[in-house]
Amino acid sequence: MTEPVTVSPEDFLAMGREVLARQPFSVLIGAEVVSLSAGRCELQVPVSDAVKQQNGFVHGGVVSYAADNALTYAGGTALGVPVVTSEFKINYLRPAIGERLLARAESVHAGRTQAVCRCDVFVVKGGVETLCAVAQGTIAALARQPG
Amino acid sequence: MTEPVTVSPEDFLAMGREVLARQPFSVLIGAEVVSLSAGRCELQVPVSDAVKQQNGFVHGGVVSYAADNALTYAGGTALGVPVVTSEFKINYLRPAIGERLLARAESVHAGRTQAVCRCDVFVVKGGVETLCAVAQGTIAALARQPG
Amino acid sequence: MTEPVTVSPEDFLAMGREVLARQPFSVLIGAEVVSLSAGRCELQVPVSDAVKQQNGFVHGGVVSYAADNALTYAGGTALGVPVVTSEFKINYLRPAIGERLLARAESVHAGRTQAVCRCDVFVVKGGVETLCAVAQGTIAALARQPG
Amino acid sequence: MTEPVTVSPEDFLAMGREVLARQPFSVLIGAEVVSLSAGRCELQVPVSDAVKQQNGFVHGGVVSYAADNALTYAGGTALGVPVVTSEFKINYLRPAIGERLLARAESVHAGRTQAVCRCDVFVVKGGVETLCAVAQGTIAALARQPG
Repeated sequence: MTEPVTVSPEDFLAMGREVLARQPFSVLIGAEVVSLSAGRCELQVPVSDAVKQQNGFVHGGVVSYAADNALTYAGGTALGVPVVTSEFKINYLRPAIGERLLARAESVHAGRTQAVCRCDVFVVKGGVETLCAVAQGTIAALARQPG
Repeated sequence: MTEPVTVSPEDFLAMGREVLARQPFSVLIGAEVVSLSAGRCELQVPVSDAVKQQNGFVHGGVVSYAADNALTYAGGTALGVPVVTSEFKINYLRPAIGERLLARAESVHAGRTQAVCRCDVFVVKGGVETLCAVAQGTIAALARQPG
Repeated sequence: MTEPVTVSPEDFLAMGREVLARQPFSVLIGAEVVSLSAGRCELQVPVSDAVKQQNGFVHGGVVSYAADNALTYAGGTALGVPVVTSEFKINYLRPAIGERLLARAESVHAGRTQAVCRCDVFVVKGGVETLCAVAQGTIAALARQPG
Repeated sequence: MTEPVTVSPEDFLAMGREVLARQPFSVLIGAEVVSLSAGRCELQVPVSDAVKQQNGFVHGGVVSYAADNALTYAGGTALGVPVVTSEFKINYLRPAIGERLLARAESVHAGRTQAVCRCDVFVVKGGVETLCAVAQGTIAALARQPG
């Protein structure tokens, strides 16, 4: 990137929360940005009945939503520009049973046009975090509009 | 598989719908099994405001939900036993703008313990289907309980 | 893409073979471009002892090489510019036992800067093709140099 | 796993090297197991001209070979049984230019029948390691034979 990006942690978090608040789907399931800095994001989803599947576990689609969104934030803050998720891959490790999902993502490499990020998704129960999915994906910078 | 699986198309569809009806998250976003046969599934999600992100496109997490669930059904009907999604990968191709998402999945190989499946996710607008994501993943048979 | 790409099938194939001939690793394992057109590629690798693993099957690394390279050709001919593989995912379906690997890839979506492609890898024995792996990945256009 | 696995580091390494020595393809490109313990593996490939592509970088197929094989070893030692790679995904980050590839893999979750592993692939030049690819995949236990 040609321009330096100097954003305070408070501003990053405020921006991240403001974006999430404008995503009706994220609001629908109660997702929340817990922390955000350049190349790192923690996002959580409270486990209500509405996000479960037929066995009472969190639906895989919600686990993948959490991974996808956390990857996007990690890549977006690493690149410092508006982004979209190009692709990601997720491995489910265990049924997610607990009070909330916690997705922790970080950028492992940020180039000029894209960042590659990894994410661990935990389910938290009684304060104990259990890893329930791991993901890896590519976040792409949206083309800049001419000035 | 050692036992033959002979299920009528109507029974497959009824079973698929019955499972979906017991997934609160699938009910929340209005997902529906359109068709189901051995190794094939069509699943749709109506595009309401609730499933969108900040730019008015369907949220990537909902696109990945549709892919994940359609892959699971394709693998489950190919294997003929209860299953879970082990892993999948998705590439987003275009913003999803339209009236409904339509995820078409099929099994490309079913072994004894797992099936590998592919999925195309379309967004349908005015009767026109536009491919907006492609996915590939592994569906694993749940361990059979002793009789 | 702004400029039209009009390349004859013979020219595509000649270009593809010329590139492969300049890849020492592809020469080492005897890879060959069988056919090439805009967004489509067939690439084969003869099965010699040198490409096997300890059980006599083709080594997974060679199967993934074939998928990777076929994806790159399919994406490169779809985009019409020099490219690199950004990422791919592969599922191995069966041990590859036969006379040659045949990787068939096609572009499912080509944008301005990248193409998303799929690949089926077959092993051919006595004229019979058996699917042994499926892959999906992203091929990125290299940045154009000014001038 | 029902049986305890107690293997000394020296035995792990000797076993790993013995398997690699029986893989003609691994011998062809000079791959070597650097270290091996339960759920962890370091594997290296010297960069000779033979493993390069047309621009002088290590061929992507060789990078993916290194990732695939390191993932397999990490999963195999985590599970303690004979295994195969079911699937993996790789993101290429930078051209690999240097003296040797070094793939470091570790198991992030090992169940009864499969392990999910991650891998970082570095290229080493003048003693400096540069991350050039990241991978994630599933290693499956081969079915145990009765008796």
